[in-house]
Amino acid sequence: MTVRVAVCQLAPVLGDPGGNLDRALRAVAAAADRGARIVVLPELVTSGYVFADEAEARRAAQPADGPAVTALARAARDRGLVVCFGFPELDEEGRLRNSAVLADPGGVRAIYRKVHLWDREKEIFLAGDEPPPVVETELGRIGLVICYDLEFPEWLRVAALRGAQLVCAPVNWPAEPRPPGERPIEMVRVQASASVNRMFLAIADRTGTERGVEWVSGSLIVGPHGFPLAMADPAKGEQILVADCDLATADDKRISPRNDVLADRRPRLYGEVAGA
Amino acid sequence: MTVRVAVCQLAPVLGDPGGNLDRALRAVAAAADRGARIVVLPELVTSGYVFADEAEARRAAQPADGPAVTALARAARDRGLVVCFGFPELDEEGRLRNSAVLADPGGVRAIYRKVHLWDREKEIFLAGDEPPPVVETELGRIGLVICYDLEFPEWLRVAALRGAQLVCAPVNWPAEPRPPGERPIEMVRVQASASVNRMFLAIADRTGTERGVEWVSGSLIVGPHGFPLAMADPAKGEQILVADCDLATADDKRISPRNDVLADRRPRLYGEVAGA
Repeated sequence: MTVRVAVCQLAPVLGDPGGNLDRALRAVAAAADRGARIVVLPELVTSGYVFADEAEARRAAQPADGPAVTALARAARDRGLVVCFGFPELDEEGRLRNSAVLADPGGVRAIYRKVHLWDREKEIFLAGDEPPPVVETELGRIGLVICYDLEFPEWLRVAALRGAQLVCAPVNWPAEPRPPGERPIEMVRVQASASVNRMFLAIADRTGTERGVEWVSGSLIVGPHGFPLAMADPAKGEQILVADCDLATADDKRISPRNDVLADRRPRLYGEVAGA
Repeated sequence: MTVRVAVCQLAPVLGDPGGNLDRALRAVAAAADRGARIVVLPELVTSGYVFADEAEARRAAQPADGPAVTALARAARDRGLVVCFGFPELDEEGRLRNSAVLADPGGVRAIYRKVHLWDREKEIFLAGDEPPPVVETELGRIGLVICYDLEFPEWLRVAALRGAQLVCAPVNWPAEPRPPGERPIEMVRVQASASVNRMFLAIADRTGTERGVEWVSGSLIVGPHGFPLAMADPAKGEQILVADCDLATADDKRISPRNDVLADRRPRLYGEVAGA
């Protein structure tokens, strides 16, 4: 059984929360109209990313029961979807978090607080301390990480070990120079993580220039073999990509008559990775 | 200070140990003639790979002080090189190992026994239980893994945490189908591992058809940014690739004013990766 997965590459605008929420809701509706049942939006899609300072981020932040999360969770319920997206969260103790939500028709199923913070995020957000959630949904077991988390193969491994068939990642990938003809290294890392864990990954990047920052605009969906099933068109900015994924195939970790990417691990030899 | 690294993509022949050793020694000499100081040869380069059974592997195996290792270590000494290569090892207790050697002018500095065994290797070889060696050489700190080990990001991380600036990997990559225009996923995984650890990787693959098995013939050298510095020409079989690498740059793990790929790790949250 396949399920259609959509990643929505959007260009949120700093200081325009209403416009950002409208844009996100329109993208979810458009993806659903194209038959998608799982929809991923970028990191901090309700706010934009390049905050001038903590105060600006705080003005953009909402609690997990605030209007942005409520509206997107309602869209998930109304359209029978799984929706993953990022937002700046004001937590129970008034601290800022770079968070992502997984919502399905049952409501908000997980709020994940980014564990690996990028650059100036360290001055704005408090890092999370919890593992990536893996949520049992009607459509499959779906994990959730955010952007720079993807650069830590340990984190994707934890999601795989917890049974994720698909990991969704809202991201904002700042563009870096690369050699001609080379795929952005962010996309290469996603391919590798899909491959070594034999699972799907769905990455929603942002696009547009924001306060001088250019973005990779590299949204993609990758299958368990590590090859892209859908990739953003570099000639377009905002766009929605879809791929039909048989998520149950990610439960089969065999790659030869005698090999299995998880069973072949030698965890007792990996103590140093966990600081032992 | 840069050092020239060479990977030699060769086609060893089953049942011809003398020819294989000659081929390996000629490749080392040719790489040295081109100015290389670090030379990597394929996995099981002294024997070939597709053994019919354990008995055939046993006939091809040698102890670590046998003629093949001795001759290649002598070449390293005579030419002032670091040489890494794979061979079927008969260990002290008469068991077979899929091993790799790092030799430098001081002699054999490390023998590494492959920890993650591929397919029928499980019926022939006993897996190693030791971490990847990282050897302090005159040219830099060099780590050593073998082929399928590369599919376990934990293993490359261990090498990076132990200070490897360059990881050398003798491999025999059996070819698998891939979508048109896509780079072999084995190469993609190597790029990702270089990138997330900010270190160099030098991969010597084999070439030629052996008992019906085709090989990726995908030797490559990758820099700490994850982009290839040299890649095998698919139109050629045997070939030597070189790249000039400033290995000390791999000591710098910073990737933004506030990010460092190792310091940003959250090892206390990675317990599951090590079976905790």
